[in-house]
Amino acid sequence: MRWYIIALSLIILLVPTALASEAVGTIDIPKVILSLAIMLLVAKIGGEIAERKFKQPGVLGELLAGVVISPFAFGPYLGFHVIPGEILPISPEIDLIGQIGVVVLLFLAGIETDVKQFMKFGKVAGLVAAGGVVVPFVLGYFAIKMFYTPPAGEPIEYVALFTGAILTATSVGITARVLKDINRMNSEEGTTILAAAVIDDILGIIVLAMVIGIIGTATGAVELNFIDNAWNEVVTKSTTTDILWIVMKAALFWGVVLFVGLKYSDKISSLLGKFETKGALMVIALVIGFAISYVAAYIGLALIIGAYAAGLALSASSHKEQLIEEISPVFNFLVPIFFVAMGMLVNVKDAVTIAGLGVLILVLAIIGKAVGCGVVAYFSGFNYNGALRVGTGMIPRGEVGLIVAYIGLSSGIIQQPIYVIAVVMSIVTTLITPPLLKSTFAKGPEKGWKEKSG
Amino acid sequence: MRWYIIALSLIILLVPTALASEAVGTIDIPKVILSLAIMLLVAKIGGEIAERKFKQPGVLGELLAGVVISPFAFGPYLGFHVIPGEILPISPEIDLIGQIGVVVLLFLAGIETDVKQFMKFGKVAGLVAAGGVVVPFVLGYFAIKMFYTPPAGEPIEYVALFTGAILTATSVGITARVLKDINRMNSEEGTTILAAAVIDDILGIIVLAMVIGIIGTATGAVELNFIDNAWNEVVTKSTTTDILWIVMKAALFWGVVLFVGLKYSDKISSLLGKFETKGALMVIALVIGFAISYVAAYIGLALIIGAYAAGLALSASSHKEQLIEEISPVFNFLVPIFFVAMGMLVNVKDAVTIAGLGVLILVLAIIGKAVGCGVVAYFSGFNYNGALRVGTGMIPRGEVGLIVAYIGLSSGIIQQPIYVIAVVMSIVTTLITPPLLKSTFAKGPEKGWKEKSG
Repeated sequence: MRWYIIALSLIILLVPTALASEAVGTIDIPKVILSLAIMLLVAKIGGEIAERKFKQPGVLGELLAGVVISPFAFGPYLGFHVIPGEILPISPEIDLIGQIGVVVLLFLAGIETDVKQFMKFGKVAGLVAAGGVVVPFVLGYFAIKMFYTPPAGEPIEYVALFTGAILTATSVGITARVLKDINRMNSEEGTTILAAAVIDDILGIIVLAMVIGIIGTATGAVELNFIDNAWNEVVTKSTTTDILWIVMKAALFWGVVLFVGLKYSDKISSLLGKFETKGALMVIALVIGFAISYVAAYIGLALIIGAYAAGLALSASSHKEQLIEEISPVFNFLVPIFFVAMGMLVNVKDAVTIAGLGVLILVLAIIGKAVGCGVVAYFSGFNYNGALRVGTGMIPRGEVGLIVAYIGLSSGIIQQPIYVIAVVMSIVTTLITPPLLKSTFAKGPEKGWKEKSG
Repeated sequence: MRWYIIALSLIILLVPTALASEAVGTIDIPKVILSLAIMLLVAKIGGEIAERKFKQPGVLGELLAGVVISPFAFGPYLGFHVIPGEILPISPEIDLIGQIGVVVLLFLAGIETDVKQFMKFGKVAGLVAAGGVVVPFVLGYFAIKMFYTPPAGEPIEYVALFTGAILTATSVGITARVLKDINRMNSEEGTTILAAAVIDDILGIIVLAMVIGIIGTATGAVELNFIDNAWNEVVTKSTTTDILWIVMKAALFWGVVLFVGLKYSDKISSLLGKFETKGALMVIALVIGFAISYVAAYIGLALIIGAYAAGLALSASSHKEQLIEEISPVFNFLVPIFFVAMGMLVNVKDAVTIAGLGVLILVLAIIGKAVGCGVVAYFSGFNYNGALRVGTGMIPRGEVGLIVAYIGLSSGIIQQPIYVIAVVMSIVTTLITPPLLKSTFAKGPEKGWKEKSG
């Protein structure tokens, strides 16, 4: 391990204290370059240790490396400071590059998906997603009603509804990465989890819309620039018509993207093939992925939903293998930045100070998804092991939980203790999933699906 | 060509007018994603047309595509607007991603360099660089003295000195890209040009430091976030000691990076080889590149100088071929963004309105480098064709010319007409170099170097 220490010491020695100064307004490009260097270095060191010392997915190491270099831990020695006035404890530029990374991640996950498999498991995935929304919501709601004493001015009914909403949406990024790491993306369980997480994201938006509709809090001034335009729309206008409108847009978007992608896969392949200059084919595929991601965000869904849909649409292309090969280095460069950034959001000090309620919510968050999704999966055709894998894969809340918590805090519906609990819940569920998911795949029979006729 | 039109029409139809709104302070991530999609699309279409229809380097097509979608041309229809208060007509986020691209470009150029060749041509390159600094400086100085009538309050002596300085520094990015496109990076001419451009950048900083020292304008408040911290330092303090200090730092930096890189290439290879997880080796190489780029910027050189030095230091590694292969897709993704962004800086309307002086400066800029470098190259061992290639390769000023012009404008030393001329000169020299350089390599004998003993 000696060389890890040497590499880390070198970086720490190299980083000048000059970094502490914050340029306002303009972007300090050399500083961003240095931040990327540090983040990628700790990501790869964390990944190596996780994979080789502990036989865990590399992404777990990247997340924990992020926790270590967060502004709340050793970050200040490396130039990572909490920026006053910013909600996120990372700089907007790093956030941007990380978000481009997560778009590339979901795009590649889409390309690698076996579409026939995806279609076959669509119905099961819908049921699993519904189970994974209802159970955690109910658990979260009653836990707050029974065990939480709100500070003055915080109506407990609203807090309970909001906490329920925080617990609903699955973050597909981490699970997609683990499934890719252990080469199970196209297993029955993998397909079900990915499809369910996608549907779940839409259900999550609907639940949030309903909760905000019930609360009737129309702040109108919430500024959101964190992956997801959809939430902003939901926060500012939430009538029944709007909720129906969101569902319709989502259905239409998925219908059009998948129909065009799969129906005209030959035409798309031939269009891609028209670009003969070096590397152009892969870049044009990324252009398609970025453009469709934008459209998804524009109509009120999430960037990453669009990226995954775009990837699926290209998954039937005859250039599939070439795309996977050429996009992978871009993935290797950008995606670790996202996961280190996710880790950097964790305030380890706050995590230590919250007691009982935090642990309770955390446990309910884990049980809610594992049971809600797992039981439905079991009754939809998976065996015990398969259902366990599906339930486990749906546990992480990641950035989606953070977004909901952030909306609650910035719109005044929830206060600091619940916010901290939500952040810790999002991160812990994200941290524990990689080892849990890997172990569920390692034990029990290989096949998790009771083979039936169709 | 029908499909180009279809693709372009689609993008134009897709881009909503909503893009016109400018978020202040925060980053609109979906908008950046869309901007990248548009820039990469026009880059690849431009590149295909340039290479296949006109047999020119792809980068020329990318630059011209940038001119077409600049905020001064068709950009506003695509969401690219001039942002009030910003010096550059592109958004800071796009600028950032483009700058990361140019760092990757120079880093890869360094890795691909044949170091023995680089060392062999170091002395010639030094002389060529000196010739290419002195001749354009003198020509620019006297052209302004003789043909320019400054507006009130603009001392002609200062304007002349500054214009001379603007004409000195070669932009290595475009030439590196062309040499890579035509596969001549490691020819005698290619090596000389790259080495001379690197030395030239340092000479350019020294010239600017001297000019500012003479003018004695210490504004102290110039904010520079455009590649180059060095200029900022030069602008704010320029005594003889400081100039010596810059030269020493540059020499020390190059000495240390190259010595460590080449002396310990086995150790570096073995360190890289320690990272066994997928893609980690390439990422760690990028970490080294980014870290050394930062150090270069930090001690007052340029990011891209550091990137090139870091690449050279890794060029003797046993992983050279693997690094080239794995970094190339990242290059293909990021580098076109830089060149489209460069094209987007051109204000075509202003370019049309400036008359005689602009053309004169432009011609002197071209002749200055071609003659200054070409003649020196000829007397240093190149034949006529080789000297022509070296002289041509040194023509582009690109972003370095823009930086100097920007410093002059923002510190009040030069006014709009000279600034516009400098911008147009930088861009035109950048635009004409790819076809010129390619044609000088196509004609005449293959070998441009009079083979001697050493």
